[in-house]
Amino acid sequence: MVVDRDEASVVWGPGEPFVMEQVQVDPPQKLEVRVKILFTSICHTDLSFWKGENEAQRAFPRILGHEAAGWSRIVESVGEGVTDMKEGDHVIPIFNGECGDCKSCRHGKTNICSSFGVNPMKTVMNNDGRTRFSVITEEGDKKPIYHFLNTSTFSEYTVLESACVVKIDSEAPLKQMTLLSCGASTGVGAAWNIADVQPGSTVAIFGLGAIGLAVAAGARARGASKIIGVEMNPNKFIKGTSNGITDFINPRDPGKPLHERIREITEGGVDYSFECVGNSDVLREAFLSTHEGWGFTVILGIHATPKMLPLHPMELFDGRGIIGSVFGGLKGKSQLPHFAKECMRGVVNLDEFITHELPFEKINDAFQLLVQGQSLRCILH
Amino acid sequence: MVVDRDEASVVWGPGEPFVMEQVQVDPPQKLEVRVKILFTSICHTDLSFWKGENEAQRAFPRILGHEAAGWSRIVESVGEGVTDMKEGDHVIPIFNGECGDCKSCRHGKTNICSSFGVNPMKTVMNNDGRTRFSVITEEGDKKPIYHFLNTSTFSEYTVLESACVVKIDSEAPLKQMTLLSCGASTGVGAAWNIADVQPGSTVAIFGLGAIGLAVAAGARARGASKIIGVEMNPNKFIKGTSNGITDFINPRDPGKPLHERIREITEGGVDYSFECVGNSDVLREAFLSTHEGWGFTVILGIHATPKMLPLHPMELFDGRGIIGSVFGGLKGKSQLPHFAKECMRGVVNLDEFITHELPFEKINDAFQLLVQGQSLRCILH
Repeated sequence: MVVDRDEASVVWGPGEPFVMEQVQVDPPQKLEVRVKILFTSICHTDLSFWKGENEAQRAFPRILGHEAAGWSRIVESVGEGVTDMKEGDHVIPIFNGECGDCKSCRHGKTNICSSFGVNPMKTVMNNDGRTRFSVITEEGDKKPIYHFLNTSTFSEYTVLESACVVKIDSEAPLKQMTLLSCGASTGVGAAWNIADVQPGSTVAIFGLGAIGLAVAAGARARGASKIIGVEMNPNKFIKGTSNGITDFINPRDPGKPLHERIREITEGGVDYSFECVGNSDVLREAFLSTHEGWGFTVILGIHATPKMLPLHPMELFDGRGIIGSVFGGLKGKSQLPHFAKECMRGVVNLDEFITHELPFEKINDAFQLLVQGQSLRCILH
Repeated sequence: MVVDRDEASVVWGPGEPFVMEQVQVDPPQKLEVRVKILFTSICHTDLSFWKGENEAQRAFPRILGHEAAGWSRIVESVGEGVTDMKEGDHVIPIFNGECGDCKSCRHGKTNICSSFGVNPMKTVMNNDGRTRFSVITEEGDKKPIYHFLNTSTFSEYTVLESACVVKIDSEAPLKQMTLLSCGASTGVGAAWNIADVQPGSTVAIFGLGAIGLAVAAGARARGASKIIGVEMNPNKFIKGTSNGITDFINPRDPGKPLHERIREITEGGVDYSFECVGNSDVLREAFLSTHEGWGFTVILGIHATPKMLPLHPMELFDGRGIIGSVFGGLKGKSQLPHFAKECMRGVVNLDEFITHELPFEKINDAFQLLVQGQSLRCILH
């Protein structure tokens, strides 16, 4: 059945305001699922695509949104061949899907599915190369609206490939679970899966937005003894403390270069550093802040500008490593349900990340809160 | 006792010919060992320091040499406090020492000792900041000759810190064991310790000098199913075949970019690539030749020019890693004796690497063989 009066928030051009539209949502095709979104949130990646920062990735009109700002969605209808979900299940959409069957999914070392892995260029469904969203123009034509990051959650209903939908425990507290769609999974997963933070180790986190704080929560859960937060906005220190940050450094304070300050207070450098800003200079500081011999830097920030890695090849010879990370190295379908249970046990307190809540119609206000650095996550109902 | 008529090959300035000199060699001090060198060989690192390519690392007059071109040396006398060696032991000098006691030596993840790790700037002994080599000038003054990479093996006698001397099995075939000082350990260790090559995996090696061939031998010993050698000099293909290379690519052949050719014949890219050239463009090809999701590039080449890593941070997000490696990740004192036994068992055929042998006096000829790409290793007796 076509949903023909879906309330969706459509962006018609780079940086243009979100417009609430009556959108037609087609039924799910083979191995697709239509999901009724109860909550959605905004992440910096939405911000970047809204602005159209990367020209090659621009596609408008588009329905953005990829993070469960509420934490659960309800499966509205399932397409042919979908066997792991039924109507009424509580589910989380994931921008980095897992088909479970391709060369990459069968490989132990990657979480980037060959068919449904994160792909900023993708705007249509794999089945038929078309969109499931459309509006009727004044001339009576059917105009397609593009999909975004396998998810497009700024809509009452959305259609996703089933590889991009994870069924979670129906007892899971839905409001918190939303954050598993992106921010919390990305940060905690980076600490657990990518860096494999060890008990008693030292950590530096550059940028204390939701991702950085999730890294801190993950590192604390692993028993890190010192977790240094580097952040220019001192308002974020309070949330930092409650997520496990033990030391704060404000780069605006006068003094030695950041990495020298960090190396001094950690006797030669931290065991792990996490770059959650997306800035080339910050990345270099993060790298230099780690201990020679075994220091390990995880890149989480999105580096949009076409700068090369700010490292000389020989700087890798002293044994420090650097690695990128998508979705915290998590294989969504197979690992997210377990992570959801860990959060229910309180290993990570997801309430910490929700600073604001607004009705879905106020999405433009919610974007401004994020732009101005006032919110970590604003949940849209 | 001072050795006052030591035959050593001294370089007096960048690129100047090696001059056989009568050098005075002081006795070993505390925790030092004087070694009688039976064989020595030449590696590209010697070549680079001979030319003085890196101005900051120039120090002349100097005795170069760090690889056992013969494979064993005999301990000539041991200083105070040395308990793991006695006169007459067969030993291998290592440019990347292991004190066994510092924070780095006690850490599982690095082989770079805080006190005696490889250090191209070091020219004197740690004990007193002086050299153990000197010559008497025409004016009758004692002129110090600088040490090189903890070793200075282009000399009949040399003095090393005991952290940089490894005792090996006295039954080990000395001629082959020489290569464990650098080339064979660096290449095989990179395949075993750094990349951890798995059975059935695919490998690409850029540059088939001694290091690249040692990587191949190591990968073959681990059961790699496809080992691609990339080399401009087809004369090296014969040695490549006998060390396990299964496919050759000559970058001078017309056609698609290297990484596209490699990705085609390996269904998406190799599991591991090794850059053994020290060239920024080659490094980028090596990185792009690996499979998205889990491909892993090991840098072995020395990148002297001040270029940054030729990678964009976002290129690390698809799960490919890159790492530097020194001495194959081996902790010399604790792991080299076992590796020597593996070579005695024939896991790696060290004879393959010795293409020439000359008397020590012909060192200038031996350098020319390496410069002209005619030799892999030329052993000097």
